[in-house]
Amino acid sequence: MNPALNDDIIAAVATPSGVGAISVIRVSGSGSIEAIDRVFQGKKKLVEAPTHTVHYGQIICKENTVIDDVLVSVFRQPKSYTGEDSVEISTHGNPLITKKILEVLVNASIRMAEPGEFTKRAFLNNKIDLAQAEAVADVITSRTDASLRGARSQLDGMLSKKVNEFKSALINISSFVELELDFAEEDIELIGLGELKNKIVYVLNEIDLLLSTYAFGRIIRDGVNVALVGQPNVGKSSLLNYILKESRAIVSSIPGTTRDVIREEVSFDGILFRLYDTAGIRLTTNEVEVEGVARSREAVKNADIVLLINDVEQGKSEELLREIYDLTSRDKVISVMNKIDLSNGVDYPSDVRVSALTGEGIEDLFEALKTSALGKSNYSEKSAIVSNIRHYNCLVKSKDYLLNALESVNNKMSGEFIAVDLRNAESAMVEIIGDVSSEDILNNIFMNYCIGK
Amino acid sequence: MNPALNDDIIAAVATPSGVGAISVIRVSGSGSIEAIDRVFQGKKKLVEAPTHTVHYGQIICKENTVIDDVLVSVFRQPKSYTGEDSVEISTHGNPLITKKILEVLVNASIRMAEPGEFTKRAFLNNKIDLAQAEAVADVITSRTDASLRGARSQLDGMLSKKVNEFKSALINISSFVELELDFAEEDIELIGLGELKNKIVYVLNEIDLLLSTYAFGRIIRDGVNVALVGQPNVGKSSLLNYILKESRAIVSSIPGTTRDVIREEVSFDGILFRLYDTAGIRLTTNEVEVEGVARSREAVKNADIVLLINDVEQGKSEELLREIYDLTSRDKVISVMNKIDLSNGVDYPSDVRVSALTGEGIEDLFEALKTSALGKSNYSEKSAIVSNIRHYNCLVKSKDYLLNALESVNNKMSGEFIAVDLRNAESAMVEIIGDVSSEDILNNIFMNYCIGK
Repeated sequence: MNPALNDDIIAAVATPSGVGAISVIRVSGSGSIEAIDRVFQGKKKLVEAPTHTVHYGQIICKENTVIDDVLVSVFRQPKSYTGEDSVEISTHGNPLITKKILEVLVNASIRMAEPGEFTKRAFLNNKIDLAQAEAVADVITSRTDASLRGARSQLDGMLSKKVNEFKSALINISSFVELELDFAEEDIELIGLGELKNKIVYVLNEIDLLLSTYAFGRIIRDGVNVALVGQPNVGKSSLLNYILKESRAIVSSIPGTTRDVIREEVSFDGILFRLYDTAGIRLTTNEVEVEGVARSREAVKNADIVLLINDVEQGKSEELLREIYDLTSRDKVISVMNKIDLSNGVDYPSDVRVSALTGEGIEDLFEALKTSALGKSNYSEKSAIVSNIRHYNCLVKSKDYLLNALESVNNKMSGEFIAVDLRNAESAMVEIIGDVSSEDILNNIFMNYCIGK
Repeated sequence: MNPALNDDIIAAVATPSGVGAISVIRVSGSGSIEAIDRVFQGKKKLVEAPTHTVHYGQIICKENTVIDDVLVSVFRQPKSYTGEDSVEISTHGNPLITKKILEVLVNASIRMAEPGEFTKRAFLNNKIDLAQAEAVADVITSRTDASLRGARSQLDGMLSKKVNEFKSALINISSFVELELDFAEEDIELIGLGELKNKIVYVLNEIDLLLSTYAFGRIIRDGVNVALVGQPNVGKSSLLNYILKESRAIVSSIPGTTRDVIREEVSFDGILFRLYDTAGIRLTTNEVEVEGVARSREAVKNADIVLLINDVEQGKSEELLREIYDLTSRDKVISVMNKIDLSNGVDYPSDVRVSALTGEGIEDLFEALKTSALGKSNYSEKSAIVSNIRHYNCLVKSKDYLLNALESVNNKMSGEFIAVDLRNAESAMVEIIGDVSSEDILNNIFMNYCIGK
């Protein structure tokens, strides 16, 4: 047994909290089926039930009173989510009932599961690798089509497959180098320096390719922050309203902590855009506005895209533009000219021309946002992509070791040096899918999971 | 098939909404297993699966892309909740995923279920009677132990059993009367007038006994409204705070629609008490307070119990007392003397003496509230009780017909009259458990259920 595993029987409500038709309590661990038998009253004992069968009965408490009619599903190891004997109890969807049943389970020496503990066990029991375990959390929290597809591709093992390819390639290179070390005294050269170099460069290029998917992966996983900036009366609010109305899906509307920065979430083409409507950034501010202006500046600094809105009446504000360029890089700014419906306005060159009144140009604005967010990437959520900062960092670490190894080869250094770097490159790589050195890192990963998963 | 039944295949998310480890989609109707087979990709076809088995696989959409890994449970009629072929699909607990799967199901000619439609089908397919179907909703929405036990007892058929006893008794009486009518010309007396009268009186008494449980049943099902009333500075708020702290379970804290009446919910001994802290009722009010005072009066009028709080410093306000007696009946008022910790106060006779500072007397207050709520009833949630106004009204209607029948017997009227009343008494009675005359009444009952039940 993996030392991180314990043989406790764990339980948790696995369905969202609140009132509904049914709730499900998940129980897992060696002996869990016997444990549930002690509080379950059905036609026959669950220990006699084959795996993947459902049984009607009652959960009873010590005083022999019925807590609820339930359906109990039995899963026998290794054919369960965790790889252990498991039971799922389907109850009436009342938090009072699930609470009472959990109390009964705790009395039966079952303990409450920690967040993500079921998935952690699935990982420790080799049902899934670590990247897949992390994808489970992403699948649950995905809020747009693209992020869901990305998470699913990771859960289906697309990233893991790629990482395993790297692992094999690195082992292959290592084996040549290490074999050569074994025969060092005999001066047999099993692999030429040039060939060794080529092999390392090949893996380095492949890692770079995967690393380059991160911008895309991060965006589809975490969404895009967009700050709407403009002088008063350029129509920021009406433009925001038009976007919310026209976007294919309004995900949610989250009131800001202050009245100065309002956050709205919309998704188009499966990408989540978080829109921050700033109070405006102005050089001249009165006392009351200082706080709001500070928040607006923060929103601009944190934005992936800044929508700088001008209108045909007031024209472009060079002052505002300079201020924004102080806060963020130029390529993040999309200039938008609003109120193009006005006949008496003066038209200035802009990236996008819109009318929040007639809706003209709004489609162009959506396209500009999407292009700016994704760049020229032609990645697809169906191929291996990196969307998780932990994976990204592992790849960077592995790449650094490989670069060291390459330098040693170039400098014709002893094979020992190369061998160490290659082995480090490999272990940094496999951290993505599993061999995590410390229990802390593991706990950190599962800490943010929801209870019951 | 019952005319109210239709042969649509229905589906709904059965778990509470929101994000969690898993969500469950329920599907029911003749052909539902075949329908799910068209969107499910598993090791084998579900149509070949025995009832009460669970199957791992994927839900796929038209373009053959995987929406989610799922566990599918198969239930074959009549051994399912609805009595029909049913399928439960357990997915990752992401609203985006359940939405997508429901879309796939709708494309497979399955329609979204109406609220309570699964339970309605269970009733129409004679899996449960109507009182039990109504108990399902109560089991789900129960918020205290007592209300849950009451709902469970009804779901277990305690009330239905009683109603069926009444039904049998009434049929028995009717049969004698109607048989006598058949033999009317032959002047055979099968049952003496006295015996007939006794039989009717016996059922009447039994109905009265059941009706008398309603006060108790309503309270454990719906809770008790308590208005806290008192002059300024008698310590209403600190008393409320002490109650909230000491009560065995704070159910929730619901901010009032105005700042004048604050509602808090606490449960003790399984009974839900809704506490309304009024701004105080005063004869002299300034303009601004008029609205708040009106609301306070409303709270007193609607209260099941009024806690009239005085303190040992100010003594009793006769004026306030008179005003409360104008609004509600005297037996609903519990007088509470607060601040008994003060040494310099004058003690007036009160129902309960407390100190919100030291906590002295708070237990007495809890007992007084409980006694006032339940009266001297020695009912238990384990016997047949009436907690639903519809059932209460059916019983009253049945009783009225029986009283008519009794009067006819007393007046030695023709057997035809008696027979009609007896039959009406019986149909009013069985409306509790099922034979509901109109589809409207039925729809009305299930309308307030949650989706997926």
